[in-house]
Amino acid sequence: MRIPRLFVDLPLAAGSPIEVTDERAHYLRNVLRLRPGAEVDLFNAGSGEWRATMKAIQRRTILLEIGTQTRKPEPVAGPVLYFSPIRRNRLEWMLEKAVELGVQALVPVITERSVVELGRPDRLRGRLIEAAEQCERLDVPEIGETVALEDVVESGVPLIVGDERRDDGSLLQALEDLPDAGLLVGPEGGFASGERDLLIDSGARMVSFGPLILRSETAALHMLSAWRALESDLVEAEADDGQA
Amino acid sequence: MRIPRLFVDLPLAAGSPIEVTDERAHYLRNVLRLRPGAEVDLFNAGSGEWRATMKAIQRRTILLEIGTQTRKPEPVAGPVLYFSPIRRNRLEWMLEKAVELGVQALVPVITERSVVELGRPDRLRGRLIEAAEQCERLDVPEIGETVALEDVVESGVPLIVGDERRDDGSLLQALEDLPDAGLLVGPEGGFASGERDLLIDSGARMVSFGPLILRSETAALHMLSAWRALESDLVEAEADDGQA
Repeated sequence: MRIPRLFVDLPLAAGSPIEVTDERAHYLRNVLRLRPGAEVDLFNAGSGEWRATMKAIQRRTILLEIGTQTRKPEPVAGPVLYFSPIRRNRLEWMLEKAVELGVQALVPVITERSVVELGRPDRLRGRLIEAAEQCERLDVPEIGETVALEDVVESGVPLIVGDERRDDGSLLQALEDLPDAGLLVGPEGGFASGERDLLIDSGARMVSFGPLILRSETAALHMLSAWRALESDLVEAEADDGQA
Repeated sequence: MRIPRLFVDLPLAAGSPIEVTDERAHYLRNVLRLRPGAEVDLFNAGSGEWRATMKAIQRRTILLEIGTQTRKPEPVAGPVLYFSPIRRNRLEWMLEKAVELGVQALVPVITERSVVELGRPDRLRGRLIEAAEQCERLDVPEIGETVALEDVVESGVPLIVGDERRDDGSLLQALEDLPDAGLLVGPEGGFASGERDLLIDSGARMVSFGPLILRSETAALHMLSAWRALESDLVEAEADDGQA
């Protein structure tokens, strides 16, 4: 069985004792059924990943001892996703997939046609942590405070914007041209025309998804997938050049 | 409110009466709360899309009269997705997204590490129909019979294969080189080494998703997204050339 990974928000170092409590302890003890001697990989962005051994199980606490480092910290790279709040079950799927695809951070954006309020950030954080543990990331992307579209535009961040079935430009081309852009997805029903004007006037790059309507969460994952595919493509090209 | 779309598996023509029964009738009458005079867009791949008007509501049946054609039949184009059976809730999510992204058909493939049996095809078909209605497709992709990996290889269809975090080639490059290839995604745990050899020997193109582990359903949607993004990119390029 693969060694389970556990996000621990504390500095990790050789020989350090780590206490895991409450739901995390329950997860290790009752769900994974680990016993003393079992190995767990602990990680966070700052410390990297460390192999730890379970030392003692108590009722609400599990004691782990950290051994050797298995992965050094890595630079965090990936797009920021500016997304429209959507219903809880769809949101959770989107968060999980966004983490798998390599999103760096997520920012909820309120627009004219937004109809859903975001759930409590701490509950969403649990989902992000689980997703990061499963897909072998070292960092757990954060969800920022909810902001208004105008605030995002005012911040000056370069944006690639997906807005329904517009006759806009190529997503792949936009990702090549603006490698540091945030990815902005509109709500179901799209951006209002005033919002679209605001985005275009600010220099945002409007892109098309093709002829079909994508739900908001699908559009978000589509943009992240395109980014991911292009990244891999560039890495492959560099590798080939290296071998030439 | 947007005019609702309803998939009807019958030839559609001007003036024809259409009867909708049982769950579909319930959906129109009780969920959408439509009443006589309301408009519904009926569609299927063969007939295209037709504007219809609700004429009469009975207990189990709704009578619609077809008016004018709103969309002609369109050629069906898109990749075939060869996927690993996965748990029901993830599978339904994957089907919905695959339809949105433009999959042409889906084929369940059993591999050494497959652990899940596919649910009943008729229940899955309902999900495919709903997804097609929501995303404005004219056709409803089919789910084929479950096949073994060896059968897929033996059929001679060109394949682009996503298999975990291998040091394989670029997905975008593979899609450009093999525009008619089927997209094959392995199960959680990936292909067994013998299966991988079989695929490589048959000429299949193995591609990488980048450094992170993608769940089986995420990998499927990632491949479809990459295909979709590349298609849009090529359309944009042709449009630009046309205007040059």
